[in-house]
Amino acid sequence: MITDRKQVTEMILSAKVSKGLKWCDVARAVGLSKEWTTAGCLGQMTFDKQQAEVLGEIFGLSDEAVAWLQVVPYKGSLPSEVPSDPLIYRWYEVVSVYGTTIKELIHEEFGDGIMSAIDFSMDIQREENPNGDRVNVVLSGKFLPYKSY
Amino acid sequence: MITDRKQVTEMILSAKVSKGLKWCDVARAVGLSKEWTTAGCLGQMTFDKQQAEVLGEIFGLSDEAVAWLQVVPYKGSLPSEVPSDPLIYRWYEVVSVYGTTIKELIHEEFGDGIMSAIDFSMDIQREENPNGDRVNVVLSGKFLPYKSY
Amino acid sequence: MITDRKQVTEMILSAKVSKGLKWCDVARAVGLSKEWTTAGCLGQMTFDKQQAEVLGEIFGLSDEAVAWLQVVPYKGSLPSEVPSDPLIYRWYEVVSVYGTTIKELIHEEFGDGIMSAIDFSMDIQREENPNGDRVNVVLSGKFLPYKSY
Amino acid sequence: MITDRKQVTEMILSAKVSKGLKWCDVARAVGLSKEWTTAGCLGQMTFDKQQAEVLGEIFGLSDEAVAWLQVVPYKGSLPSEVPSDPLIYRWYEVVSVYGTTIKELIHEEFGDGIMSAIDFSMDIQREENPNGDRVNVVLSGKFLPYKSY
Amino acid sequence: MITDRKQVTEMILSAKVSKGLKWCDVARAVGLSKEWTTAGCLGQMTFDKQQAEVLGEIFGLSDEAVAWLQVVPYKGSLPSEVPSDPLIYRWYEVVSVYGTTIKELIHEEFGDGIMSAIDFSMDIQREENPNGDRVNVVLSGKFLPYKSY
Amino acid sequence: MITDRKQVTEMILSAKVSKGLKWCDVARAVGLSKEWTTAGCLGQMTFDKQQAEVLGEIFGLSDEAVAWLQVVPYKGSLPSEVPSDPLIYRWYEVVSVYGTTIKELIHEEFGDGIMSAIDFSMDIQREENPNGDRVNVVLSGKFLPYKSY
Amino acid sequence: MITDRKQVTEMILSAKVSKGLKWCDVARAVGLSKEWTTAGCLGQMTFDKQQAEVLGEIFGLSDEAVAWLQVVPYKGSLPSEVPSDPLIYRWYEVVSVYGTTIKELIHEEFGDGIMSAIDFSMDIQREENPNGDRVNVVLSGKFLPYKSY
Amino acid sequence: MITDRKQVTEMILSAKVSKGLKWCDVARAVGLSKEWTTAGCLGQMTFDKQQAEVLGEIFGLSDEAVAWLQVVPYKGSLPSEVPSDPLIYRWYEVVSVYGTTIKELIHEEFGDGIMSAIDFSMDIQREENPNGDRVNVVLSGKFLPYKSY
Amino acid sequence: MITDRKQVTEMILSAKVSKGLKWCDVARAVGLSKEWTTAGCLGQMTFDKQQAEVLGEIFGLSDEAVAWLQVVPYKGSLPSEVPSDPLIYRWYEVVSVYGTTIKELIHEEFGDGIMSAIDFSMDIQREENPNGDRVNVVLSGKFLPYKSY
Amino acid sequence: MITDRKQVTEMILSAKVSKGLKWCDVARAVGLSKEWTTAGCLGQMTFDKQQAEVLGEIFGLSDEAVAWLQVVPYKGSLPSEVPSDPLIYRWYEVVSVYGTTIKELIHEEFGDGIMSAIDFSMDIQREENPNGDRVNVVLSGKFLPYKSY
Repeated sequence: MITDRKQVTEMILSAKVSKGLKWCDVARAVGLSKEWTTAGCLGQMTFDKQQAEVLGEIFGLSDEAVAWLQVVPYKGSLPSEVPSDPLIYRWYEVVSVYGTTIKELIHEEFGDGIMSAIDFSMDIQREENPNGDRVNVVLSGKFLPYKSY
Repeated sequence: MITDRKQVTEMILSAKVSKGLKWCDVARAVGLSKEWTTAGCLGQMTFDKQQAEVLGEIFGLSDEAVAWLQVVPYKGSLPSEVPSDPLIYRWYEVVSVYGTTIKELIHEEFGDGIMSAIDFSMDIQREENPNGDRVNVVLSGKFLPYKSY
Repeated sequence: MITDRKQVTEMILSAKVSKGLKWCDVARAVGLSKEWTTAGCLGQMTFDKQQAEVLGEIFGLSDEAVAWLQVVPYKGSLPSEVPSDPLIYRWYEVVSVYGTTIKELIHEEFGDGIMSAIDFSMDIQREENPNGDRVNVVLSGKFLPYKSY
Repeated sequence: MITDRKQVTEMILSAKVSKGLKWCDVARAVGLSKEWTTAGCLGQMTFDKQQAEVLGEIFGLSDEAVAWLQVVPYKGSLPSEVPSDPLIYRWYEVVSVYGTTIKELIHEEFGDGIMSAIDFSMDIQREENPNGDRVNVVLSGKFLPYKSY
Repeated sequence: MITDRKQVTEMILSAKVSKGLKWCDVARAVGLSKEWTTAGCLGQMTFDKQQAEVLGEIFGLSDEAVAWLQVVPYKGSLPSEVPSDPLIYRWYEVVSVYGTTIKELIHEEFGDGIMSAIDFSMDIQREENPNGDRVNVVLSGKFLPYKSY
Repeated sequence: MITDRKQVTEMILSAKVSKGLKWCDVARAVGLSKEWTTAGCLGQMTFDKQQAEVLGEIFGLSDEAVAWLQVVPYKGSLPSEVPSDPLIYRWYEVVSVYGTTIKELIHEEFGDGIMSAIDFSMDIQREENPNGDRVNVVLSGKFLPYKSY
Repeated sequence: MITDRKQVTEMILSAKVSKGLKWCDVARAVGLSKEWTTAGCLGQMTFDKQQAEVLGEIFGLSDEAVAWLQVVPYKGSLPSEVPSDPLIYRWYEVVSVYGTTIKELIHEEFGDGIMSAIDFSMDIQREENPNGDRVNVVLSGKFLPYKSY
Repeated sequence: MITDRKQVTEMILSAKVSKGLKWCDVARAVGLSKEWTTAGCLGQMTFDKQQAEVLGEIFGLSDEAVAWLQVVPYKGSLPSEVPSDPLIYRWYEVVSVYGTTIKELIHEEFGDGIMSAIDFSMDIQREENPNGDRVNVVLSGKFLPYKSY
Repeated sequence: MITDRKQVTEMILSAKVSKGLKWCDVARAVGLSKEWTTAGCLGQMTFDKQQAEVLGEIFGLSDEAVAWLQVVPYKGSLPSEVPSDPLIYRWYEVVSVYGTTIKELIHEEFGDGIMSAIDFSMDIQREENPNGDRVNVVLSGKFLPYKSY
Repeated sequence: MITDRKQVTEMILSAKVSKGLKWCDVARAVGLSKEWTTAGCLGQMTFDKQQAEVLGEIFGLSDEAVAWLQVVPYKGSLPSEVPSDPLIYRWYEVVSVYGTTIKELIHEEFGDGIMSAIDFSMDIQREENPNGDRVNVVLSGKFLPYKSY
């Protein structure tokens, strides 16, 4: 009996290690970006029936698990408010150090409002560089203005 | 008597509002990107003597304040671990929802290590879009591998 | 020297008590809803020049304070993550008790996504009722769907 | 052996996914609003015998589980004080940003007291809108005055 | 310039010590119970004009302070979620140790609902006792039932 | 193998629901107040051999469980520092709003010291009332003075 | 205007350093143990009129400050739940490491109840020791039994 | 498979209740103080082979469990930073109320440094007393000075 | 089914105790430092195929567990933000007491930047000393400068 | 009136920036290591009379400030449990990632006990390195064994 989307995430992670799969190959099979597909497999996005069935085959999931992939999950992938993992912490640190800067510059350009984290996409790429390769990430979010009423 | 870099940040913010200045103009005068310059003015980066003097003139700062701009600050710009401001929270949410995804994809491409938040740059741009303009942000950080020893 | 929008909020609150003003009258003078106007006076919204000048006259604010009313504030009006004030706590309790219910029902109707807190309005009204008058609040937020990419 | 209402909530969620049920249909069968019924199924409200038996049939619950649906649960549906799920967070954000505004306006209209979260109802509806459909929520709570004694 | 009810509480506490006043005498002058009067003087309740003026005379308050006594305060008198003061902690401990017991017994007698903390009164008395005098406190709160809708 | 008193509490709760028992009847069988008996069954008090055996029969407990009822438990019945359950929260709110008031009035009457939560009893009663029945609770605790040494 | 006992503690600490006083000499002048006297000077105990006047003379306090020494303070001397100061942390560590041991042994000897922190005294002494002198502390607290009712 | 010292602590506690053992008897069998022995059985100290084997016989432990008793545990016996159990809380309260006092008096006698919690012993005794028996605890810790370098 | 690297860490710890292994011997077999090898076995580093297979043999792990040793783990080895274990706490204390000192001295020598915790190594050695042996630890981290852009 | 050592730390930091001093020069004048001297100037160590007077001259401090330098401070230099400053955070991360490793290896070498943070010294050096200079830090702490009693 599956009672929580997290159980499906665990099944996927277990199968991925056993079968030696790669997220980029999974994404190609599903027909979507590696960022969105991975987030979905990790329990943060909702798949439609066809996508879920493809994943079910790739990871060898039961019908019940495939059904749960189509249920909107309770989101948030971190076990603590400040993440302990060094890779993820660096992103928290960017928000901590640059948070007020990002706020000032978006408001200066757009006025009061936010950059959406829903109408949003992310693209992670390797940039070859003689001083050491770099991770380049493009975040794109729609600007949503506060309006008076 | 100035005892903390935060006092200089407050002086800058107060002068900016009174004088109606813009961060992009300040950055142009300093000769650096708007992202780094703003972060520095908000107490997150360290200016060299010449940059600090330019800022001193722009914001009408005392010599003591100009000296403090050249002192490495205690960094972190947020008043709480989870930021309450909606614009900054959306960035925290991106880390919360996509944190494990970012981790998986960088490790898949590069192996164990992190994306540096020090050898790092950020570029924030408006993208015009008929469905509503977007905020596009490019984050670039050097990949630093964990190596065994 | 004003260094923070909070100082203007304090000036407004102090003047409001001394002059015996009402939020609904302030809102009428500004020409906006009482909800948005009050939120702005309490440091959560950004006024345009004309609105700020009206408020400056009503509350007897300095030019510097009027300038700060046009600066986007760092939002969040509560002194702790769980509010101690009983009236505000009841709202926190609604989110705590009904949070997963709201989530389930919006997803059932709209699919994966959120109800915006930015493209949002709120209307608070008294409903006369023989068993004790009621507070009726209408919250309206645009549904923003998560889309795959 | 069931030792906690949460176990029944898990059984209900598991059956709902397996059987492909909808909360609005469950509510119709129980004869109550979708908001209250869903909250009850998620372990926040107490059912009477007849309601519990209807649910028992719909979800295929054991007699023991049906008995537990009639026990008052320990309420609160969120796993952390600040919810990480984006949909629920937006509601927390409304309380955070508008909390003092709601307080001011209710006190201005009613004097000192609270809007009850017990003598309370909630109605969630879709509003069709050419700019994007909206979620409209009506919250209705009895005003309870503080009285001196 | 008074910007917060807490400043008036501090004025009252300072005057109380300087003048050697007693809460029970203050309450008698105001014409209300010592519990409600003290809570109000400590910034938790709202006085009407006449009560505030009596307090203004007793504590030698300015007109501005008297006006603030008529403003609904942001409630909550403790500096931390778990109070460090031993007397107040014992009350927190009663809630911690007996919390689930109180819940069970009220539900057993009344069904699902709460004991109101708004339609509420408290009476603190000394009980003489040869084994050591006792503090007897009577708490009385209206039962508010959850009702289905 | 029972390793913790909490396991016995769960057995008792499970049996209570299955058998449809009432705390007041359990208390009568044990020969003690409903408040103390319930607290003990919920893992907050220690039973003597005879009481434990009575409970063992009522709830159908194993000898091992009966032995554990005679072991002093690690006390505290709440899963978080600020309780989320509305009924229990109202009690936390009373401590939060009236905490400093209770402190002032007990000190005014008795001097420095505390109201004991150990040499303590609690009595919960329904008070019929045409405006809605009330929960009346009498708390009685010995005053324990701080003495200099 | 003194509004809080903490202000008097600061006056005492400032005078102690300026005058080069020792707690043991202050205690001798007051006629009480060094432990209780120091705790009182640090804002944790309440002095009677005569004691307060002696302290007023020793530390050169105003009449207002002397009056505040006779007011019961809000107790708790630590700025955070887990103290950062190494000397005080070691005591926190003793509670953390030996907490359950202390609980087991007191219950084994006395049954269910507590060791009072109110009917309590503490004596700190140097023990000369060839392997390095030791701090010996005797804590004495009345055992208070839980009794059924 | 035992993966954590806590599992052995649970086995010991379970056996202790089933067999009706006393810590003082266990300590006598091991040949050490009741304080150190109990702390060790509760997972805070490390036993040598011989001691572990004695305990293995007393509590009927497997060889694997006996091996784990000789592994240094991750220490700290409390489930939360501020302990909810009243007996243990009173010790936390002593640290909270007397913490700065202990610090001042040890520094006055010894200079800067700490009282060791490692080169440390504790002795808990009953003191008969006509006003109610007392718990007397002697804590002895080596003074460790900070030295400049 | 293994779903998390922590499960492998538990298998390793269990086998280590049962087989009486030493970390320094494990490290020698793997051909790396004892510091890095132990960190990896405790779930903080990623092994390559060959290293993982050596560990699989030493600890008797399944193929699935050996595969998981090659997966980058979610790092962070402590169960709470402030560690309760005395040995680990002392390190936290060094960061707490000397944190700002380390910051000042590295900035004085190198300018703004950090000491890497990724391009990092650690060496722990015993130093024999007549006054008591010492633990000597050498931490070596690359300096990474903040650069303007 | 100085009431807290922190005020002296602020005076020192302010003078250091105004006068353009370096910690290594201050240390040379005091005659101690740069690590200990800096920690002392930042309010973490206690100076003797002669050292304090040297500092008084260097930083231009009043006699009162010089007296406070000889008072043992309340230690701990970080404003939050998890430090936000990236340089200091990396040290916190080392404790988080390597904490259990350090514990295992010290126990393997020395048995149960700790590495002292009091009988402790630290030495920070630049290591020139063609791949980028490194920060090398030697931490030396006496091993303190737990002994049974």
